[in-house]
Amino acid sequence: MEKVLQYLRENEARFVETLCEYVRFPSVSAQPQHRDDLQACAKWTRQHCQDIGLEAELMATEGNPVVIARTPRTPNSGKRHFVVYGHYDVQPGEPFELWKSGPFEPRIVNGSLFARGASDNKGQHLAHLNAVEAYLKTGTPLPCDLTFLIEGEEEVGSDSLPKFLKEHRAELRCDAIIISDTSIPSLKQPALTYALRGIIAVEVKLIGPNRDLHSGLFGGTVDNPAMALCQLLAKLRDKRGRVTIPGFYDDVAPLTKFERRELARLPFNEKAYQKFLGVPALFGEAGFTPIEQRSARPTLEINGLTSGYQGDGSKTIVPSWASAKLTMRLVPNQEPAKIRRIVNEHLKKLCPKTVRMELTGGHGGEPYLVSPTGPQAQAALRALRTAFGAEPVLLREGGSIPIVTEMKKYLRADSLMLGLALPDDNAHSPNEKFSLEAYKKGMAMSAYLWRELAS
Amino acid sequence: MEKVLQYLRENEARFVETLCEYVRFPSVSAQPQHRDDLQACAKWTRQHCQDIGLEAELMATEGNPVVIARTPRTPNSGKRHFVVYGHYDVQPGEPFELWKSGPFEPRIVNGSLFARGASDNKGQHLAHLNAVEAYLKTGTPLPCDLTFLIEGEEEVGSDSLPKFLKEHRAELRCDAIIISDTSIPSLKQPALTYALRGIIAVEVKLIGPNRDLHSGLFGGTVDNPAMALCQLLAKLRDKRGRVTIPGFYDDVAPLTKFERRELARLPFNEKAYQKFLGVPALFGEAGFTPIEQRSARPTLEINGLTSGYQGDGSKTIVPSWASAKLTMRLVPNQEPAKIRRIVNEHLKKLCPKTVRMELTGGHGGEPYLVSPTGPQAQAALRALRTAFGAEPVLLREGGSIPIVTEMKKYLRADSLMLGLALPDDNAHSPNEKFSLEAYKKGMAMSAYLWRELAS
Repeated sequence: MEKVLQYLRENEARFVETLCEYVRFPSVSAQPQHRDDLQACAKWTRQHCQDIGLEAELMATEGNPVVIARTPRTPNSGKRHFVVYGHYDVQPGEPFELWKSGPFEPRIVNGSLFARGASDNKGQHLAHLNAVEAYLKTGTPLPCDLTFLIEGEEEVGSDSLPKFLKEHRAELRCDAIIISDTSIPSLKQPALTYALRGIIAVEVKLIGPNRDLHSGLFGGTVDNPAMALCQLLAKLRDKRGRVTIPGFYDDVAPLTKFERRELARLPFNEKAYQKFLGVPALFGEAGFTPIEQRSARPTLEINGLTSGYQGDGSKTIVPSWASAKLTMRLVPNQEPAKIRRIVNEHLKKLCPKTVRMELTGGHGGEPYLVSPTGPQAQAALRALRTAFGAEPVLLREGGSIPIVTEMKKYLRADSLMLGLALPDDNAHSPNEKFSLEAYKKGMAMSAYLWRELAS
Repeated sequence: MEKVLQYLRENEARFVETLCEYVRFPSVSAQPQHRDDLQACAKWTRQHCQDIGLEAELMATEGNPVVIARTPRTPNSGKRHFVVYGHYDVQPGEPFELWKSGPFEPRIVNGSLFARGASDNKGQHLAHLNAVEAYLKTGTPLPCDLTFLIEGEEEVGSDSLPKFLKEHRAELRCDAIIISDTSIPSLKQPALTYALRGIIAVEVKLIGPNRDLHSGLFGGTVDNPAMALCQLLAKLRDKRGRVTIPGFYDDVAPLTKFERRELARLPFNEKAYQKFLGVPALFGEAGFTPIEQRSARPTLEINGLTSGYQGDGSKTIVPSWASAKLTMRLVPNQEPAKIRRIVNEHLKKLCPKTVRMELTGGHGGEPYLVSPTGPQAQAALRALRTAFGAEPVLLREGGSIPIVTEMKKYLRADSLMLGLALPDDNAHSPNEKFSLEAYKKGMAMSAYLWRELAS
């Protein structure tokens, strides 16, 4: 192990140069004019993987190719197998005028490398490749078999990934997936993200009269669909911030004492948070901290309201219809299909007889959780602790990461989310950067990780 | 009186020809290309008034001229003075393709004259002019002094009228204004419209976070302005259809037994009305009939809702703000300014601390009522009864007629609304028509009216 770490230290400058080379590719998946750049970037990645001693190939998809790179295998070694996920595509550079230097002209300032893709995600998976390089180049036996899966469509929805996973699920069968594409609060608080929220979307439309009615001639004799909608939606959340749909919380896995203690360790300044969002006061489900509310508790949000006249001034009508877009964030172990059913049933029950209701289902996504006290999570935490020299924190993510649920679905394996991005890395924004210290710590973490996961 | 009625009978055919001549002018006030037509129509009206023996002149305004035509006066006669209001401008003819013949090519089919403006309003005020002509041409002394005020901007908001009324209020001082510009249920149910609803408009905006927030990253920690708005608006109306704003009903003049009995005489088929509006069920303030609900009771309507994402599919946000346009229909004796004050106070009181509220005032209009049991209303009812040979009904109008409140404001006189339009006259629509029977009955009603009002 010492040889591996020494190799990492000795090659630090070169690893930075390699990252610079990598981020110079404007591999923007959202923009057709960069198709050749994506191809070139994928080829460079394959070549780099081969150069460090991996068996690498480009795998065609209907979209951009996937780079698959394997550590040399010893038949029947009995070693555990892990997939390391990354993506070589990046967000667009626009708006260029807000960048202090070109998004594809890497520049080092105050210990950070500024470039599009530095943090999201080239730097993060390159850290893992560097660690593996250290094993291979020093002749240190790798404690596990690894397969790098580096795709080129993450920033546009990973459309080709599900089919790819399905077709290659035999060779990708693994004990877990390692994804470094999330954030840590600070370099002193490395983190394992162990849970994600799921989602369902529902659109409710209430239809009253067959046309907008003159509110003078007809107003008072028919229900107003906008009022009926408000009265219906108003009943979905109580004063304590609880969703009032019967059964909504039935399957929610309660936060353990351990989890609550861990989440309480995260830095959070309520006043600063409130100011950052510009709200007069915070509001959430009673009995939970804001960190719990936004990551570990289910929510119901109105995303949009539409009814009647929305222009300047006023128009004296009873609108013909009113509609609302709703999404619910789900947590383990809520099932999207079941929640959709109870939500739709409840909405129908609340609908007054004076209007007709139309319900439209939108997309749905499973919530996700890997036990933070399980052996793999514990192994990851040990690697983080050793590499960063600090006690790691446990994070839950309030949003969804569709890749994780796709991996679970096709490979039947959990994902260990070991992000290296800092909160001010400006992912998706101008002046994206990656901390060179996080890069270095990430390499060490990866080096320790294979040892810990194998044990 | 018999001479007057005989003159009306003998000249019936000519009166129809005169109306045909009048409706041939495409006096469309909304369309600039018809400016000359409006001038020509106004001049024709003045000339016609002079031909029948009135002292008539065109009075310039900032918009279209007003025709003023007076019956010859005897100094110090002590006669009562009434203003007869009408308008020579008409709605646009479009969509032309839906007319069975040109909107400005009058055609008589089944006892109705089809042409734009036939019912709204040329035929209706011409009936009064014909009745006055009968008095003047037969040498029958008119029991009252009359001033015809025929404007040319009614269909575009009567913008010049308030100033005109203010400048000429001395010579227009009168005992009442006669307006034939409303409807009657049928030729067997002539009607006096004795009350109008007023209105106030309010826009409520609730502002939460300083931008649309990612519902995954932040949802659960801040109030959702769309939900806050729904919960606020939901509280403004109860299950029995009552507005719940404290004090809202305090000044409402209750319907008298007499009024309720009169309104109950109006033809109303609940099933047909429901089908016409296309609603699954009617809904209104408990304890009142639909006719009372839509004309004699105040209402609160949401005219429009706006918040967040309104496009296709879903967008997972907590919207930054949500707004609603509200109008309240007011009845005598609710004061718009007072109601606006209590509404705004109540909305502020209901606003949760988690959002900021912005209230914008819109337009307002006074409700209107002339006692249906007062001497002028009784005189009008007698004239209707005699002319139509049927018991007249009393109507309340659910909408507002701004001219009436302007007249009240500047001339301090009540308006007697004695409309001659039938429900199927297609005012503002293709194939507008005017019943020649209503025209004839209207002339007789006018002839009787001056006798009854003078007594």
